[in-house]
Amino acid sequence: MGRYDKLKEQVYLCNMEIPRKGLALYTWGNVSAYDPDNGAIAIKPSGVSYDELKPSDIVVLDIDGRIIEGTMNPSSDTATHLVLYRNFPSVRGIVHTHSTYATAWAQTCLPLTIYGTTHADHLAADVPCTEVMADERIQGNYEEETGNQIVDAFKNMSYSDIEMVLVACHGPFTWGVTPEKAVYNAVVLEELARMAFITHTIRPDTPALKKSLCDKHYFRKHGKDAYYGQSSNK
Amino acid sequence: MGRYDKLKEQVYLCNMEIPRKGLALYTWGNVSAYDPDNGAIAIKPSGVSYDELKPSDIVVLDIDGRIIEGTMNPSSDTATHLVLYRNFPSVRGIVHTHSTYATAWAQTCLPLTIYGTTHADHLAADVPCTEVMADERIQGNYEEETGNQIVDAFKNMSYSDIEMVLVACHGPFTWGVTPEKAVYNAVVLEELARMAFITHTIRPDTPALKKSLCDKHYFRKHGKDAYYGQSSNK
Amino acid sequence: MGRYDKLKEQVYLCNMEIPRKGLALYTWGNVSAYDPDNGAIAIKPSGVSYDELKPSDIVVLDIDGRIIEGTMNPSSDTATHLVLYRNFPSVRGIVHTHSTYATAWAQTCLPLTIYGTTHADHLAADVPCTEVMADERIQGNYEEETGNQIVDAFKNMSYSDIEMVLVACHGPFTWGVTPEKAVYNAVVLEELARMAFITHTIRPDTPALKKSLCDKHYFRKHGKDAYYGQSSNK
Amino acid sequence: MGRYDKLKEQVYLCNMEIPRKGLALYTWGNVSAYDPDNGAIAIKPSGVSYDELKPSDIVVLDIDGRIIEGTMNPSSDTATHLVLYRNFPSVRGIVHTHSTYATAWAQTCLPLTIYGTTHADHLAADVPCTEVMADERIQGNYEEETGNQIVDAFKNMSYSDIEMVLVACHGPFTWGVTPEKAVYNAVVLEELARMAFITHTIRPDTPALKKSLCDKHYFRKHGKDAYYGQSSNK
Repeated sequence: MGRYDKLKEQVYLCNMEIPRKGLALYTWGNVSAYDPDNGAIAIKPSGVSYDELKPSDIVVLDIDGRIIEGTMNPSSDTATHLVLYRNFPSVRGIVHTHSTYATAWAQTCLPLTIYGTTHADHLAADVPCTEVMADERIQGNYEEETGNQIVDAFKNMSYSDIEMVLVACHGPFTWGVTPEKAVYNAVVLEELARMAFITHTIRPDTPALKKSLCDKHYFRKHGKDAYYGQSSNK
Repeated sequence: MGRYDKLKEQVYLCNMEIPRKGLALYTWGNVSAYDPDNGAIAIKPSGVSYDELKPSDIVVLDIDGRIIEGTMNPSSDTATHLVLYRNFPSVRGIVHTHSTYATAWAQTCLPLTIYGTTHADHLAADVPCTEVMADERIQGNYEEETGNQIVDAFKNMSYSDIEMVLVACHGPFTWGVTPEKAVYNAVVLEELARMAFITHTIRPDTPALKKSLCDKHYFRKHGKDAYYGQSSNK
Repeated sequence: MGRYDKLKEQVYLCNMEIPRKGLALYTWGNVSAYDPDNGAIAIKPSGVSYDELKPSDIVVLDIDGRIIEGTMNPSSDTATHLVLYRNFPSVRGIVHTHSTYATAWAQTCLPLTIYGTTHADHLAADVPCTEVMADERIQGNYEEETGNQIVDAFKNMSYSDIEMVLVACHGPFTWGVTPEKAVYNAVVLEELARMAFITHTIRPDTPALKKSLCDKHYFRKHGKDAYYGQSSNK
Repeated sequence: MGRYDKLKEQVYLCNMEIPRKGLALYTWGNVSAYDPDNGAIAIKPSGVSYDELKPSDIVVLDIDGRIIEGTMNPSSDTATHLVLYRNFPSVRGIVHTHSTYATAWAQTCLPLTIYGTTHADHLAADVPCTEVMADERIQGNYEEETGNQIVDAFKNMSYSDIEMVLVACHGPFTWGVTPEKAVYNAVVLEELARMAFITHTIRPDTPALKKSLCDKHYFRKHGKDAYYGQSSNK
């Protein structure tokens, strides 16, 4: 068994969750995982349909984007993933999708308001939205600049407390300490955006969740005093 | 066969209906049942995915919340269920979900308007929405206070005529004289919220259903003169 | 084989189409068929879930509502069906559902605007909405009065050109020259209401389809000059 | 094997994708393919349900609409397809559906705004909407005039850069260099319309995507400098 086979299998399975959870049509979306012990990042190949994807298609790169293993072109969003792995050091998995509600919200160029405890169970703040990219950055290395825009959006926020972002005019990126957690976050973000769409449509002036409720729900599930689930600290 | 096995199996099956009816993602949501003859309440364990849930995982507690049987942590919402069983004495099953439309409506902090006869077939009034919880209550025993907020909302209403509530900023709770009826009510509430969302979006000033129609539909199905279904009194 | 077995089997199959097409939860909705040669109307029993429904459960009545065959209570909406069969003489099947979008539109108490050719392929006018029922009628024979309200709504319209109606605050009824056609119309109405909801939300002042397009599409599929499908006249 | 069997099989399979992707109810929608080497256009027969459709039902015509092979009436929209094949010479497949969101948007008579990069990945402009057809054209050869309206809408646009259109008050047509690509475009258009509906509902004054982002995404996937996917030029 090859050195990267386990990582490739893991990334393959995480990618297959994307259409199974209804987050992507055709080839849209991609999942990567980072194994720092092997200095390896595994990612979906570009433009391959989920119906045809095989574990052996997964492309393995080093953190500078040089291909270590694989014969296919990696996802066209690879440079974005690499920027995030370099700047968010504890991240081990990243997901990009064009899931319907999260993408539609990203198209408004607004952050996703925290309206309720479902949201606060996962993060205690709005899901941030990046700036619309400046023309000179678009003309440059576009995918790398997409990563830079995300890093900029987290200048005053913790990427480990808020594991998701909307890229303005584009769509969602999510991450986590495992690729499975990043996929979970992609599913959660889609549902949060769907609920927020409905809430906002019924009552456009619905206020954001007050801080005491944000914190209560977040810290019920995260941090040293968490008491949700079967382990004391999740 | 153990003393609580039948109750645990029943609660297991009711919990499994939650994802089957599309009311929950991952571990979200929980169903409990109360067997007063055995002094036992059975509830889903905390943070366990429906894919992995087994009847033997169900936790059994007494009405004060002491674990009688089971090795897992009970649902983090257990204290809310217990308050409801203590205050709503004829209730034998309780359901909490984060179903999309009911949760989105709860996030608006508004009651769910009774717009039509589908609603009136199940209750003859708006679905009430609790007050937003005060900070000192949030800082206290939060889950117990959630139960107290629900009980407060029913001060001038009958919990047996209205078997559902929206907890402001949070989501729905439903109950019934059996856990199966509580699950049925959770499905109904989600559909009522979905219909009300559409009605309100098409015509924001749609009036509430007039009292004569509320009563006609409700009493067609409930109370001593009910004539819906195969038994004379349902 | 009994005299009514074929009719009961047909009505059973048409009823089972209702949940299959996503038009009903649990026991909601009912389909009937009328066989004038046998003086028999067959209808779903009241409050029976589609999961448990069997052809032998179907209740057979005469046009005055006397039970000819069957041991169960007929649908609580039977009186509405009977009024329609008596007043719309060429009708051979009737469907009532609480399908989401059609019911939500009925709750607005507005007719369903004809916005496009999908609608005009089936009827060349708005789907009418009945008046909200007066209190004295509600207090009387409610289900019969529901039928009367529908008949009133068709005073200046042809029930064979427009095979569907919204009952204000309640939901849709559809009919046809066969029960299968009535089920087809129920599916169509739900889709027309869904499309109209989206159109109206995007652009609230969208005008109704102009008459020349209404007529073109309707008469392409109906009447003596129809040229859609495999027979010359459909 | 007959001369047209391969083409008929291909058109059959493409037609069957329409209900599989949720783009059509019952008989709604049709796909055709053009094989200029054999001078043959194959298209779905009129009014045949997808459940019953067989490859041998597919009708083969020449570019002037004369039936070469097949015993059924071709789709009632055949004349529209023929006009498009004659005016858009590189097109080899055409799809017409009444898919929910694209049809609802067409009913507003507005072009579908380009709000984000999902849209720009496929076309760098709004999806155009035709003029509402003038009465004298409706009275004439309606289906041929529908084709003419589409051709008119592309007077100042490239049909190979923009492979989709909304016919005002009616619904979408899409095309491509293969019938499979035309089906892909029909699925894409439905998703773009769904996202745009949500975006527009959340924030009605959302601006269109700026030109630099339109072009970046479009040319990432199309033209001589494309770098998406596994071939250099897609």
